[in-house]
Amino acid sequence: MINRRVTLAQRPVGMVGPECFARDEGLSPTPGPGQVLVEVTWLSIDPTIRGWMQMDTYLPAIEIGAEIRSGGLGTVIESNNDDIPVGSTVFGMVGWQQYAVLGADALVIPEGVEPQAALSVFGITGLTAYFGLLDVGRPVEGETVLVSGAAGATGSIVGQIARIKGCRVVGIAGSEEKCAWLTDELGFDAAINYRTDDVAAKIREHCPKGVDVYFDNVGGDILTAAIGNLALRGRVVMCGAIAQYNDENPRPGPNNLTTLISMRGRMEGFIILDYLSRSGEAIADLATWVMGGDMKYAVDVVEGLDQAPDALDRLFSGANSGKVMVKL
Amino acid sequence: MINRRVTLAQRPVGMVGPECFARDEGLSPTPGPGQVLVEVTWLSIDPTIRGWMQMDTYLPAIEIGAEIRSGGLGTVIESNNDDIPVGSTVFGMVGWQQYAVLGADALVIPEGVEPQAALSVFGITGLTAYFGLLDVGRPVEGETVLVSGAAGATGSIVGQIARIKGCRVVGIAGSEEKCAWLTDELGFDAAINYRTDDVAAKIREHCPKGVDVYFDNVGGDILTAAIGNLALRGRVVMCGAIAQYNDENPRPGPNNLTTLISMRGRMEGFIILDYLSRSGEAIADLATWVMGGDMKYAVDVVEGLDQAPDALDRLFSGANSGKVMVKL
Repeated sequence: MINRRVTLAQRPVGMVGPECFARDEGLSPTPGPGQVLVEVTWLSIDPTIRGWMQMDTYLPAIEIGAEIRSGGLGTVIESNNDDIPVGSTVFGMVGWQQYAVLGADALVIPEGVEPQAALSVFGITGLTAYFGLLDVGRPVEGETVLVSGAAGATGSIVGQIARIKGCRVVGIAGSEEKCAWLTDELGFDAAINYRTDDVAAKIREHCPKGVDVYFDNVGGDILTAAIGNLALRGRVVMCGAIAQYNDENPRPGPNNLTTLISMRGRMEGFIILDYLSRSGEAIADLATWVMGGDMKYAVDVVEGLDQAPDALDRLFSGANSGKVMVKL
Repeated sequence: MINRRVTLAQRPVGMVGPECFARDEGLSPTPGPGQVLVEVTWLSIDPTIRGWMQMDTYLPAIEIGAEIRSGGLGTVIESNNDDIPVGSTVFGMVGWQQYAVLGADALVIPEGVEPQAALSVFGITGLTAYFGLLDVGRPVEGETVLVSGAAGATGSIVGQIARIKGCRVVGIAGSEEKCAWLTDELGFDAAINYRTDDVAAKIREHCPKGVDVYFDNVGGDILTAAIGNLALRGRVVMCGAIAQYNDENPRPGPNNLTTLISMRGRMEGFIILDYLSRSGEAIADLATWVMGGDMKYAVDVVEGLDQAPDALDRLFSGANSGKVMVKL
């Protein structure tokens, strides 16, 4: 079978532009022992892809000429693995292409779970929100949780988990519409529009006892503003820094880090790959909340493999609310 | 009795100069119920005094016209507290003056403990090193511990505790003489001279498996270099930032904080006041190590109350090795 791919043509410098991508066609890959061949049906579009395109991070950089690395769903069309029968829907690192080979670690998605849910609230996004907030941030009932990128895939779940855990929740997002969605639909206590508000002043106003947990998806000036309002023994969960990923040169960090000394603060980074063995407990909780109507999730679906670069761009322009995905 | 004092004349902007201090004389204070009057014998000179002079931090700023806040030792000459008899040597916040009133929380120093030891390895300095390294940094045998301000009061104890705990220890200091002292006398595995070496390159060289624990006394560029060499799950103990305390404007922070994400790193600040109730366990260990010859400490003694401002300046110029103190 012919396999169409979107590949890495050159590494991005600054904003990711169309020059970074190429298209090609080749033969579909052949599964080895224990592996399966899938027809890719959905792609998960995540900010971390920007990092993989540029350099070695927690995973090696994507090679020039290789398909863009990406999580996604596929239907098994050929199987050398008895645990993953033909016809199953699986999650794995499929890449931006029509056909992919996955190994025994491909995750079989139970029947009845919509692809949109499998790729968002019950996928890496939901797990990131769950373990980042609860394991790294460790919020306690009655505390104040601040989250940036709050209308994004991860941030919107983080805020809702914090609300369910009895915290005061304040979100930071990039439009009045997103802010209204946070407070009116998702139950956030307050929302801050970083494009029009004085973020530091609004954090002070909405977090009068200080920020106990700041879940950082963006980095940059908003991180500085959050640190400046940290409560005693406040925690900063470092999940991502989307405001910085397109910088051509590393930008200076917060000028107020000594606040961490006087406030006995903690900043800690995490990578969700370390938590995959504990997915079960997270998905059980998330499913309970979604089924019970306590938690909502939004998806931002782009159609067609060729549109994957545009879908990635939506993350950096802030065009999306909720999880960006591509339907092939 | 006449009480001579060194008081705060104006708050420092940038470097602390003589214009910040005034001298006055008044009547010695009178102890209330439960309190004691002490004749001050030794002052502990610590970088944190610089912060107290300027602004509210974890303690309120020193008031203009008040004596400079400072830990120190005194001999009890009048007592309204049965637990603290006349003639005892006590530690407390005596301030830069000849006579001070202390409350029931004044710490009685056991007989036989030299003042130089009571103010350094068995004092706030030793406790800071002990709890900062062991409780916040949590080094494990075989790990690599990097410490800045390594020839200073706290840093020199930190490095020795790390060595005793079976870690590889690398120190950063400001002269060849200090570096030689660290490796030849204190048993550090390597030392880096930040005035002449390429610090980041030398950290890479001396910490080939990365930095598991960085104990930060200085902030600034050295903090950035340490973060850039953090090992997986590395920890940064934020104790102080002496390189920054005299900045007129807050300086930008590390431009590589996203390393904390990819390396699952943790940066955490602490204030030793939170650990005072656990002093006993620390002092027991420290005493064992000092008596057993496993741990050395150095003191830098300046004579005379009037010289206290000069003693403080020695910390910022890096003139000292070990704990700076003033003998009245």
